[in-house]
Amino acid sequence: MKDTICALATAQGGALNVIRMSGENAIEIVSGLFTPKGGVPLTERKSHTVAFGDMRVSGDEVLDEVLVTMMRAPRSYTGENTVEISCHASPYITQQILLALISGGARQAAPGEFTMRAFLNGKMDLSRAEAVADLIASTSAASHRLAMSQLKGGFSNELAMLRNKLLELTSLMELELDFSEEDVAFADRNELQRLCQEIESVISRLASSFSVGNAVKNGIPVAIVGETNVGKSTLLNMFLHEERAIVSDICGTTRDTVEGLMTLSGVSFRFIDTAGVRETADIVEQIGIERTLEQLGKAYIALWIVDPLASKEQIEETAKKLLPVCRGKKLALLVNKCDAVDPITLSNIMEWSKTLIVKYGNGVEWENGDLWAVSARQGVNIDRVEEFLVRSAAMPSISSGDVVVTNVRHYEALVRALENIGEVKQGLSIGLSGDLVSEHLRSAIRNLSEIVGELTSDEVLGNIFANFCIGK
Amino acid sequence: MKDTICALATAQGGALNVIRMSGENAIEIVSGLFTPKGGVPLTERKSHTVAFGDMRVSGDEVLDEVLVTMMRAPRSYTGENTVEISCHASPYITQQILLALISGGARQAAPGEFTMRAFLNGKMDLSRAEAVADLIASTSAASHRLAMSQLKGGFSNELAMLRNKLLELTSLMELELDFSEEDVAFADRNELQRLCQEIESVISRLASSFSVGNAVKNGIPVAIVGETNVGKSTLLNMFLHEERAIVSDICGTTRDTVEGLMTLSGVSFRFIDTAGVRETADIVEQIGIERTLEQLGKAYIALWIVDPLASKEQIEETAKKLLPVCRGKKLALLVNKCDAVDPITLSNIMEWSKTLIVKYGNGVEWENGDLWAVSARQGVNIDRVEEFLVRSAAMPSISSGDVVVTNVRHYEALVRALENIGEVKQGLSIGLSGDLVSEHLRSAIRNLSEIVGELTSDEVLGNIFANFCIGK
Repeated sequence: MKDTICALATAQGGALNVIRMSGENAIEIVSGLFTPKGGVPLTERKSHTVAFGDMRVSGDEVLDEVLVTMMRAPRSYTGENTVEISCHASPYITQQILLALISGGARQAAPGEFTMRAFLNGKMDLSRAEAVADLIASTSAASHRLAMSQLKGGFSNELAMLRNKLLELTSLMELELDFSEEDVAFADRNELQRLCQEIESVISRLASSFSVGNAVKNGIPVAIVGETNVGKSTLLNMFLHEERAIVSDICGTTRDTVEGLMTLSGVSFRFIDTAGVRETADIVEQIGIERTLEQLGKAYIALWIVDPLASKEQIEETAKKLLPVCRGKKLALLVNKCDAVDPITLSNIMEWSKTLIVKYGNGVEWENGDLWAVSARQGVNIDRVEEFLVRSAAMPSISSGDVVVTNVRHYEALVRALENIGEVKQGLSIGLSGDLVSEHLRSAIRNLSEIVGELTSDEVLGNIFANFCIGK
Repeated sequence: MKDTICALATAQGGALNVIRMSGENAIEIVSGLFTPKGGVPLTERKSHTVAFGDMRVSGDEVLDEVLVTMMRAPRSYTGENTVEISCHASPYITQQILLALISGGARQAAPGEFTMRAFLNGKMDLSRAEAVADLIASTSAASHRLAMSQLKGGFSNELAMLRNKLLELTSLMELELDFSEEDVAFADRNELQRLCQEIESVISRLASSFSVGNAVKNGIPVAIVGETNVGKSTLLNMFLHEERAIVSDICGTTRDTVEGLMTLSGVSFRFIDTAGVRETADIVEQIGIERTLEQLGKAYIALWIVDPLASKEQIEETAKKLLPVCRGKKLALLVNKCDAVDPITLSNIMEWSKTLIVKYGNGVEWENGDLWAVSARQGVNIDRVEEFLVRSAAMPSISSGDVVVTNVRHYEALVRALENIGEVKQGLSIGLSGDLVSEHLRSAIRNLSEIVGELTSDEVLGNIFANFCIGK
């Protein structure tokens, strides 16, 4: 932690590159290489000033004319002395400056090491540090808003309130313990139950916000299902090409396997293309179909694609398999290849499919109008499907003040805390002794503390920051 | 020129993005969106300071936490008020900030517009402005040194000296004119000739430095020649793959068609793979061979690849065609496929090829030892060939003080000035009247002035800066 780190903070290319340094000797190391115009050396300049001048890495030859920004500890991102060198974006120049900084005593920063230092120096808690990576990866208004709210500490504040309540509960429990011999009911067990209930409902709300948060951050999962060869992949390509799929390769954002990401009206949709569903004796194909049903289970929206040239029996077979898995999901029925069949056949198949939804789709969120004759190949009625998607995505809407959990690590800690609270409640109701109940309370506090990083092992820290970019 | 421009100055990706603004209202426009920590608004801060704070593009919601660097006119790159916003490298954030700046009254900058403003505001002359693009594109120590020397004004100073001498010559000529009636030989024509000779030799030195400068900037041209199917392309791939070809896609550097670029010991080599040379009746193939000889003519170094399995007559046929074109070039003879023939055949062919070089290679720069049995496929003796390349590349060496012309536009202006001086000399020797000689002198001055941009049309300026990146 005492050493000085350096890294290129911008992507290679463009007009400018910014090299970032942090650590006790950052200013001295740069000062040895940099001659500011005007003469006042960097070490004698004030914090938060910018100097223009010549960068020399060996001998008298000027390597580049650069702008050097200097921020002294603790008024910087990391809380340490920080220098940013803005040079011409030549790969040669950038490399030479980094080499000179390293031979001057700095070392190459590990991914996320600047943010890790900010965390370790108390400039931000862990959940806020994690929001930095999400912020960099944000590509839509909604994902950006969630990351920014987390960076600004909304989630941290909520957690602090929760922990205070838990501490209050613990001290009440311990008062009871201290005076238990004297048989004084300091802590009315009913009152404890009420407080416990209150805490549980807050944690539970946070944990359940994860499905929304995750959908916003990673895209709302949309499964495209149907028999083989009905045009599922053509439809997927239609969505992705026409709307210019955003395939993000920004580091620091490990996501689930994404088949295709599309943003419509500021909402990201994550399309899941699936294997076709049909009766088969082929074992490999059966496994594929099981996977399809599994994927469908994870989706929030399902698009069921029907081929109007298929037999009614065939369609019913598929409906029997698919529709029960769609329970609780928003569904649209798309009869594809509408350009290739006569209107009467088309209309018959549409009516038939509707009756199948009624017959097998118990609990499926389907509105009578959500069925269209489409042509994935020619783009017919694709705009209707897109409207449906946007409308169906109207999840519990998120405003800027809302606290929404978007991080798997946070979600898992909340679920563990929820279990602890469950055990506290049970302990209270069966009259478990105060010290045993307290033990569960302390577990809950520990789990919440892990989120903000108060009690986090080096290994966990390492894993978190390994997903960051270098230079951040 | 009065409006305020903005652009992303870094490449998309990485941890940070820098948005650059220049113009009269730059500070006011950013100030309307930015709330610095500590409260002092941007408009009241000193030049060359950095402020951390919240960026809001609409309403109360914070879009990002950013660092804002401010430099007041005229102490900036462009000479105008300049603001640089360093934000998190999210595509969403970057786009939102740019949109907000534009709706605040700025407009998107054209390519190179920041540097063009620096030129138009007298912060640098045109040859130095052009060096900025070369600096950004520099990938080797040598190309970087040339660009930096030009940016630091070495070339501009040399041109200023030349123009002073030309002005001196002109005033001597005009003195002669004024007093011509009185038959006073103020300007001894021999003295004028001497001065003219001196100027000519300087311009001529500059113009001839272009071949070196161009080779350093764009890579030293190396032609790989020989019969069809001797392994020329395998050899090229060996060089490029093993040495990780640098294929630069940095904008602002239009180069000749580059077949492959490799850097060895800090020197760039540009490999030219050619069609095989052989006797043929096929007209299309004949054209291919003519092109090969043309390409070979442009090369600085030639690698002649011989197949040890070919007949002696075949090899002699090729030698007869190729070697005369190699006059003045450095040559190495590579007998390829050394892993596929017995040592005696190999040695015979090597001896035979040597005698051919002696017989047909009049004026070729070939040293007796520059011949190796190689295997392009297995990489045998490739290191020897690389040593040869580095050794042969030792052109008139360039030290940091040398002025070397690297730009085609400059070279062409120098050639035109040289023609003007030739006409002056001729005019003096045949006793042409002073006013006619002066006309040629003024043309020479005009041509040199074009290089530094004192007399440059808007169209020429437009062409020059159109090759820059946006944001520079």
